[in-house]
Amino acid sequence: MTTTGRQLVSTLTADGKMTLALEEKVFPEPTGNLVLVRMEAAPINPSDLFLMTTGADLENASYSPGKIEMQLHPMVAAGQAARHGKPQTVGNEGAGTVIAAGGGEMAQALMGQRVACVPGNAFSEYAIADAMMCLPLGEHSSEVGASSFVNPLTALGFVETAKREGHDAIIHAAAASNLGQMLNRICQEDGMALVNIVRKDAQATLLREQGASHVVNSSDRDFEMQLASAIDDTGAYLGFDPIGGGNTTDTCLRAMERVAASKMTEYSRYGSDQAKKMYIYGRLDLTPTILTPSYGFGWTVSGWLLMPFLNSCDMQTMMALRTRVQQGLTSTFASQYKARVGLDEMLTKEAIMDYSQMATGEKYLVTPLR
Amino acid sequence: MTTTGRQLVSTLTADGKMTLALEEKVFPEPTGNLVLVRMEAAPINPSDLFLMTTGADLENASYSPGKIEMQLHPMVAAGQAARHGKPQTVGNEGAGTVIAAGGGEMAQALMGQRVACVPGNAFSEYAIADAMMCLPLGEHSSEVGASSFVNPLTALGFVETAKREGHDAIIHAAAASNLGQMLNRICQEDGMALVNIVRKDAQATLLREQGASHVVNSSDRDFEMQLASAIDDTGAYLGFDPIGGGNTTDTCLRAMERVAASKMTEYSRYGSDQAKKMYIYGRLDLTPTILTPSYGFGWTVSGWLLMPFLNSCDMQTMMALRTRVQQGLTSTFASQYKARVGLDEMLTKEAIMDYSQMATGEKYLVTPLR
Repeated sequence: MTTTGRQLVSTLTADGKMTLALEEKVFPEPTGNLVLVRMEAAPINPSDLFLMTTGADLENASYSPGKIEMQLHPMVAAGQAARHGKPQTVGNEGAGTVIAAGGGEMAQALMGQRVACVPGNAFSEYAIADAMMCLPLGEHSSEVGASSFVNPLTALGFVETAKREGHDAIIHAAAASNLGQMLNRICQEDGMALVNIVRKDAQATLLREQGASHVVNSSDRDFEMQLASAIDDTGAYLGFDPIGGGNTTDTCLRAMERVAASKMTEYSRYGSDQAKKMYIYGRLDLTPTILTPSYGFGWTVSGWLLMPFLNSCDMQTMMALRTRVQQGLTSTFASQYKARVGLDEMLTKEAIMDYSQMATGEKYLVTPLR
Repeated sequence: MTTTGRQLVSTLTADGKMTLALEEKVFPEPTGNLVLVRMEAAPINPSDLFLMTTGADLENASYSPGKIEMQLHPMVAAGQAARHGKPQTVGNEGAGTVIAAGGGEMAQALMGQRVACVPGNAFSEYAIADAMMCLPLGEHSSEVGASSFVNPLTALGFVETAKREGHDAIIHAAAASNLGQMLNRICQEDGMALVNIVRKDAQATLLREQGASHVVNSSDRDFEMQLASAIDDTGAYLGFDPIGGGNTTDTCLRAMERVAASKMTEYSRYGSDQAKKMYIYGRLDLTPTILTPSYGFGWTVSGWLLMPFLNSCDMQTMMALRTRVQQGLTSTFASQYKARVGLDEMLTKEAIMDYSQMATGEKYLVTPLR
């Protein structure tokens, strides 16, 4: 028996025309350890938006029910040559109810249950998911479980990465995001010192109310001194930057070096011996990353991605991370959403112009059954 | 018994005035395993120039015999706050004759010998050096031995770093330099594939005549395609960039990704899984490093410095590196100089305006006895 439903598809052609459209799709009967999930809630994460709105002229796009046709910036379109003409499903993660299961034991055990999953086509009425990757939600709603993977495992991944590399303090930029708030809670639970960088006083207040001890506001005139002081307090020589473009990473490295240099007894033309490292894990700003020659040679800037991190974990660590997420869905790993939109509504000009801005604390949740 | 001689001193004040001057200095009788070396030859390396000319207005400086007074760019002066008012000796390395030795066994063994050394004040008539770091030159002249440390150990360090990180091919920018020519010879000896990036046809010819199989010219219109093709041939996903500022590192990462993406069967918004890494080991260009968002998240850019590398080597490796340099002084590790200048001559406008440009293949040698 097959099931038919609508799913969002993003198609880019070589001339830079991108189409987002709801298409009828036939989902086959799942086999083996696959399950068919009726999707009930899926967050719109920045990584999803990369396939939907990055480089697009949304203001002048053509909007019709269930369809947007837009023009992409030529540089962005050229950079995605590998997907020209190949329709892409969208939506990394979400939650829903298992309505059919393959014959495999793991799949059968999930029949009828509410699960969180990472199907890659979560903006859809139905999705085929791997039972091994599904997280049973028990009594939790699909909305509570919708963001069980990307943000929780990323935030846990930062702390795990820091521990592996011998750090007990980290810096986080754009720290008032859902992810940032999770990281703030995890760090308090794990005794990892955290320097939160935000842009607005309200964001600073929010994080402080959630127990953050070090919050610095990049809009303050003395921001760089505040940041250096927080680094001095915590010893944070490792940072995570979701902005990527512009000066955020550079500013962090400069502040780290300022602190390290202040502890040197002798001048060195090569800068301090203190190793300084920033991970860029997102590209909220698509302009180039700027690295000034102001912190010697003891620094590293590197990309950070969830999948390679997960692949680097052994099975025991993976299971521990999943269990921790499952047990903290309404506390440590709780997410907030600004708005809920159905599949049709997510393709309206009003909605996409808003969620494409990826403003901190203004995440959308897609509810396909709505 | 003390010895008196002239040495070059660089002094920067908080208002950005920098003075390079020859000063009379009294060298004490060496003790323990220290030796007193009468300096005969010392190369002017980019790392030396950082303390001498970086950010300086040489055109409008005030020149008098044995002295230059210049104004530094305020940004550069501020970035070196830690040395304000603290006179710095200059000259990492050089060679000369041991004319006095401390009582230690290693020091005594060098008495009367010609040695290469790393005293940190090599632009001087005399220098105190650690016998343990000295390299006996035997029948070789001081000119042959003058560049026995910085370039040879850096070039060997690149190959050692590549091997440690599991690579069998590397990219090198500004590859026609003395260092680049050494690296070209070392790579051929060690079976490490090398992609040489140069700016001029004459440099490409020079390297090819020295056996280089992959040379690409960044002035060619199809440079990026040439570079990608060379990466495809060699599998070079690790590179070393002495330019630092501008687009060199970015261009290399982009070319690596182009090759890696061409081998992918499926499109990924996160870029290829291929790890790509560039080390920045110099700052010939002091403008910011530009990293565009065009190679996903599987990349690392890091500073590379000789001293931390040497500190990471065990004693056996260090001895093997030194022995290799000693045996290859006139072959693998031979250096070429554009001109020889005495201490007074190196402070003339004509000389400093020329060597401060750090043009590839135009290195100066200081000969204090001249």
